Amino acid sequence: MTIVLGVWPENPHQALVLRLLRNDGPRSRAELGDAVGLSRSKVATELDRLTERGLIETVGPAVSRGGRPSSIVRIAADTRFLSIDIGASTIDVAVTDGELRLLGRVTEHTELRQGPNAVIGQALDLITKLRAESGSTRFTGAGVGIPGPVSFRDGVPVSPPFMPGWHLFPVREMFSTELGCPVLVDNDVNIMALGEKHAGIAKAFDDFLFVKIGAGIGAGIVVGGDVYRGANGCAGDIGHTAVDDSGPVCVCGNVGCLEAYFGGAALTRDAVSAARTGRSDQLAEVLSVAGALTGVDVRDAAAAGDQAAIGMVRDGGRRVGQVLARLVSFFNPGMIVIGGGLAGLGHSLLAEIRSVVYRSSLPLATGHLPIVLSELGDQAGLIGATRMVSDHVLTAATHSGPARHSAHPAGR
Amino acid sequence: MTIVLGVWPENPHQALVLRLLRNDGPRSRAELGDAVGLSRSKVATELDRLTERGLIETVGPAVSRGGRPSSIVRIAADTRFLSIDIGASTIDVAVTDGELRLLGRVTEHTELRQGPNAVIGQALDLITKLRAESGSTRFTGAGVGIPGPVSFRDGVPVSPPFMPGWHLFPVREMFSTELGCPVLVDNDVNIMALGEKHAGIAKAFDDFLFVKIGAGIGAGIVVGGDVYRGANGCAGDIGHTAVDDSGPVCVCGNVGCLEAYFGGAALTRDAVSAARTGRSDQLAEVLSVAGALTGVDVRDAAAAGDQAAIGMVRDGGRRVGQVLARLVSFFNPGMIVIGGGLAGLGHSLLAEIRSVVYRSSLPLATGHLPIVLSELGDQAGLIGATRMVSDHVLTAATHSGPARHSAHPAGR
Repeated sequence: MTIVLGVWPENPHQALVLRLLRNDGPRSRAELGDAVGLSRSKVATELDRLTERGLIETVGPAVSRGGRPSSIVRIAADTRFLSIDIGASTIDVAVTDGELRLLGRVTEHTELRQGPNAVIGQALDLITKLRAESGSTRFTGAGVGIPGPVSFRDGVPVSPPFMPGWHLFPVREMFSTELGCPVLVDNDVNIMALGEKHAGIAKAFDDFLFVKIGAGIGAGIVVGGDVYRGANGCAGDIGHTAVDDSGPVCVCGNVGCLEAYFGGAALTRDAVSAARTGRSDQLAEVLSVAGALTGVDVRDAAAAGDQAAIGMVRDGGRRVGQVLARLVSFFNPGMIVIGGGLAGLGHSLLAEIRSVVYRSSLPLATGHLPIVLSELGDQAGLIGATRMVSDHVLTAATHSGPARHSAHPAGR
Repeated sequence: MTIVLGVWPENPHQALVLRLLRNDGPRSRAELGDAVGLSRSKVATELDRLTERGLIETVGPAVSRGGRPSSIVRIAADTRFLSIDIGASTIDVAVTDGELRLLGRVTEHTELRQGPNAVIGQALDLITKLRAESGSTRFTGAGVGIPGPVSFRDGVPVSPPFMPGWHLFPVREMFSTELGCPVLVDNDVNIMALGEKHAGIAKAFDDFLFVKIGAGIGAGIVVGGDVYRGANGCAGDIGHTAVDDSGPVCVCGNVGCLEAYFGGAALTRDAVSAARTGRSDQLAEVLSVAGALTGVDVRDAAAAGDQAAIGMVRDGGRRVGQVLARLVSFFNPGMIVIGGGLAGLGHSLLAEIRSVVYRSSLPLATGHLPIVLSELGDQAGLIGATRMVSDHVLTAATHSGPARHSAHPAGR
């Protein structure tokens, strides 16, 4: 493994302290002692050691709890994580502090078909620009999101569709060598799920599903606060589960897949059909002017009351709901968060999904199940990428094994 | 909480040592040091402390690795766990040693409709008998399995079908009070999954599915080596997911559920129909002699070449395969283990399930996916119940939080 190991904590207590400060912000030394379950003198030893090493710093005195005076500490203010979110047509690069708050961000159009060398080169140029703007010289870790299947253990894309040249390309190794810090790579859906866990509507939930509805449809599964990736790293693929044994043929070769009915590609197909067959005047007009139709046009037409477009959103929501209803009985999540580009289809989509899930699943599993839209939007991936890599670097080096659920931790 | 806390380890290192000795049997002190990631002197301190407390004992000298001589230790030979497996028509009670090997077992017919007081009283009588036979006076913990939904956190059944009087009955509290040791209660499927993890074909797998096909159909989900129970403790319910929107009405009120097609109740219905309509001479003969038909009769008829019975097994396998194919794409398990009373339908059932799953799921998820029959049979539940409670008592008391995935650990 060529990844640079930058593991911070010397023991599990230090790891826990650093994660608490990352997740919840500054805390008093007394509170940290309680949270870690150490005596006052033992936690003081660990905090002094973290301070000596420049990883945490003291902010000021804490409000007295009646005992000895305590002080408030936080993750060192100069801590920087880097996020690289490679999308279907854009690269987003961002810098966060140690609490994973966005400090700076640059976005540029890209073409994945140029191949990984060109796109990664473009990303590195953006990082140089961001470094100059933000004055950040050293990163504690970097997280990379890719819009396709990824072997998390190896840090490489695996047969990503529409990305010629990317299959098994050493994305992690290339970034790690260039940046000189630990790098982890995962698919965009898992990373968005982690963003929702860190700073989104799912912050208080340990077990939930994040469902991305964009060009494709996928799920990020969070179990015990971490992404669950499955035995081969491909857990969460719901775009190619059958919703109808006799449905249309999907790009994957099977029939009746969810993505053959809904998602960006299916919506484009249905919108063009509605425009050409005279079922939607509005879509026909957009098509004649723009020469093409996308999910955004369907959203706008539905919002303007176009019956054909409304029908597409409802049908799509019903199909997504069918798939989620089965998963709710199986997985019993605490929450379902809907995100991705087509989450902009909004509340009529959400209403249809809710209706099917609440009707078809067992009452015990749905009684307290919120199904909600993401509030982070396109920040979910940026925050999630830094959450992923910070989970890695904030794992104690002396721990006897990898953290649970990091089935394939990098760099070990 | 009234549960008696019998937590053993004083710190996470002791917990890890005890779990290793439980899972893998006797080991040298040097090997344990390596596994726990402690220096030789630090692991010696922990092992001496565990020996002083009577929790482990030295067996003899280890084979030299070239360094200082080492010795082999094991979990104290007088350690005893208790397993109480309450089934639809039987109670199984067993005693294991600290490595969860069965030392003694008694089984008796029971009637769940007598209500919890009578059935638990019967179980306690069996325990008294087993105590006398095995000479075990003190149990470190007891695990209880119930054939219906259970709130793991509260240790009570929740609306179990065909079990009048059991809803919210304090099963854990009653056993805990009588036995004077920590007790955990869960549904039979989760417990069988844990048994497969501890001593069955899934021992080497951290992420797998156990599918029980008996009177009903359910799944136990193992993530990171522990049972995943979901936000409300009802994860794994696959018996009531729809396989056909226009199928027969299920006992749950929905239409087209898997259990409306397959499982003991559906097979009984279909077998009687085949016997009465002349489609199966063999089943008609059994019905006329015995006055009733069960899944076992279908198994025997299929084995004897009866076409109607073979058709039932194939249809059932196909439906189960449909449900599992969707879950494989979503959950990407490392293995699927098929168990329960109707697993006796054997290889024609397995062949049909495999055929549908391998055909319908994504290649990445099924490329190395073994779908196998349980080899533990009815011992899976007995071993799994002690695994469950030993996971609980072998958690360090000073740890800052509950073990991951024990979303609802008892007694905290």
